Amino acid sequence: MKLIDVGTVAKIISQLGLTCFNQQLLERLEGDFSRWQSFQKTPRHVTTCPEGVIELMPCANDEFYTFKYVNGHPANTREGKLSVVAMGVLADIRYGYPLMVCEMTLLTALRTAAVAALCVKYLARKDSRHLALIGTGAQAEFLAHALLVQRPIQQISYFDVDPAAMDKFARNMEPLGLELLRAGSVAEAVCSADVIVTATASRQQVALFDFEQLKPGVHIHAMGGDCSGKTEFALPLLQRSKLVVEYTPQTQDEGEIQQGDSSLVYAELWQLITGEKPGRL
Amino acid sequence: MKLIDVGTVAKIISQLGLTCFNQQLLERLEGDFSRWQSFQKTPRHVTTCPEGVIELMPCANDEFYTFKYVNGHPANTREGKLSVVAMGVLADIRYGYPLMVCEMTLLTALRTAAVAALCVKYLARKDSRHLALIGTGAQAEFLAHALLVQRPIQQISYFDVDPAAMDKFARNMEPLGLELLRAGSVAEAVCSADVIVTATASRQQVALFDFEQLKPGVHIHAMGGDCSGKTEFALPLLQRSKLVVEYTPQTQDEGEIQQGDSSLVYAELWQLITGEKPGRL
Repeated sequence: MKLIDVGTVAKIISQLGLTCFNQQLLERLEGDFSRWQSFQKTPRHVTTCPEGVIELMPCANDEFYTFKYVNGHPANTREGKLSVVAMGVLADIRYGYPLMVCEMTLLTALRTAAVAALCVKYLARKDSRHLALIGTGAQAEFLAHALLVQRPIQQISYFDVDPAAMDKFARNMEPLGLELLRAGSVAEAVCSADVIVTATASRQQVALFDFEQLKPGVHIHAMGGDCSGKTEFALPLLQRSKLVVEYTPQTQDEGEIQQGDSSLVYAELWQLITGEKPGRL
Repeated sequence: MKLIDVGTVAKIISQLGLTCFNQQLLERLEGDFSRWQSFQKTPRHVTTCPEGVIELMPCANDEFYTFKYVNGHPANTREGKLSVVAMGVLADIRYGYPLMVCEMTLLTALRTAAVAALCVKYLARKDSRHLALIGTGAQAEFLAHALLVQRPIQQISYFDVDPAAMDKFARNMEPLGLELLRAGSVAEAVCSADVIVTATASRQQVALFDFEQLKPGVHIHAMGGDCSGKTEFALPLLQRSKLVVEYTPQTQDEGEIQQGDSSLVYAELWQLITGEKPGRL
């Protein structure tokens, strides 16, 4: 059985370069989404802990079985620990033997960002120049890198409830040479944006902003609603949006549509990629 | 993160000796079952493969989160491979960090046998002298070793549809100096037994034997009904038995009571261990 530790993952990425790695990752994901129906999928298995959640995410096709272990402990950062760590196992479906155990903390951040990029590719306006990021934790930098490849982003406005998280984001993003707009509120960050990514960690139902505060035709990538009882928007905004989800049964358990039902969903991502449903109209 | 491979597991067992290891394992399991209510439990997550199943078995208490990956591919033995392999992860519940990855193929066989021994301790007659084993695959030898510690077994009758599996079992059990009775049929193996363990691999509903073929007061440890659609007994035998299961929701998915419902269940194992319900009456 092969063991891939965090050092090996980091080495592979640095040898390829982050942009090239992201590009190849996006292509592989696009290929997987185009074969979506060939995967055995179930909503993930959730264990609730006092300070967070631990989840198992299994998936299989006719060649491999795989699952990821991932936690979400938002308070970890207060003690200098990561809020999300992950590891995965790849197994052979024919004999059921595990083939590989892989550290996946970094890969989780990269994959999450790559799916955001894929959504932008199929759903955001081609001339999107202004990106807004709500929540500037560790994930935000990966997101910015992945999205810049897809659209001619020139400005990033950003907001976080934690000023230190904003400081860190600004410091790390400066080398990209974009216009960085530190906002004093969510509303200020999103009002002129063409693409908005929400990656907040609060574990409750909130309404980050309303439909009326946005530019027409904006693309929102809402990824912080990732637990039961945790959503980022009120129902009216969802009802006025063209809602695309990754996997409806999962999003009903732990996504924005837990507030409503699957009739809110316009399409699953794979349907845009296979052309079964049109992306941006 | 600590990695425990199969060599390390084997070394720990050989340093302690199998009997001592089994004894300590049984004590730890007895302790865990007596704290059964303090564990967060769910039925395992099953993925069906063309040749078998792959399962994830998560469990948590207020200190640790853990899960086991285990497959069941009965046809593997035809190609010289194990039909069951397993690995497990132990994580810290407070921060959600994985602490240990452990090879668990050997531990699965030992734990399965230890639970059988625990059931025998609480449910079989004290003077049980005759053990019958139906299914003499790899698990049978572990079972025999674990059960001998609990009761004054002097005879083992055994049957398997595969003569080679019976040959191997007989060869490996010979050093124990017990009377080994190779049976020509299931009926012949079980008719005089005080304790019967069924560990068959067939993936369908069968009726290995009926109530009328048994000695009064026999203890049956039925462990082969471990998949959906796979059971070892017909309903009338279950209805005439005092049925004890490990975890009712799991046994409803993948155990003998999938043929009926939870009203068949007299008790869960932990209730015998805590004394909430009496064991053998």
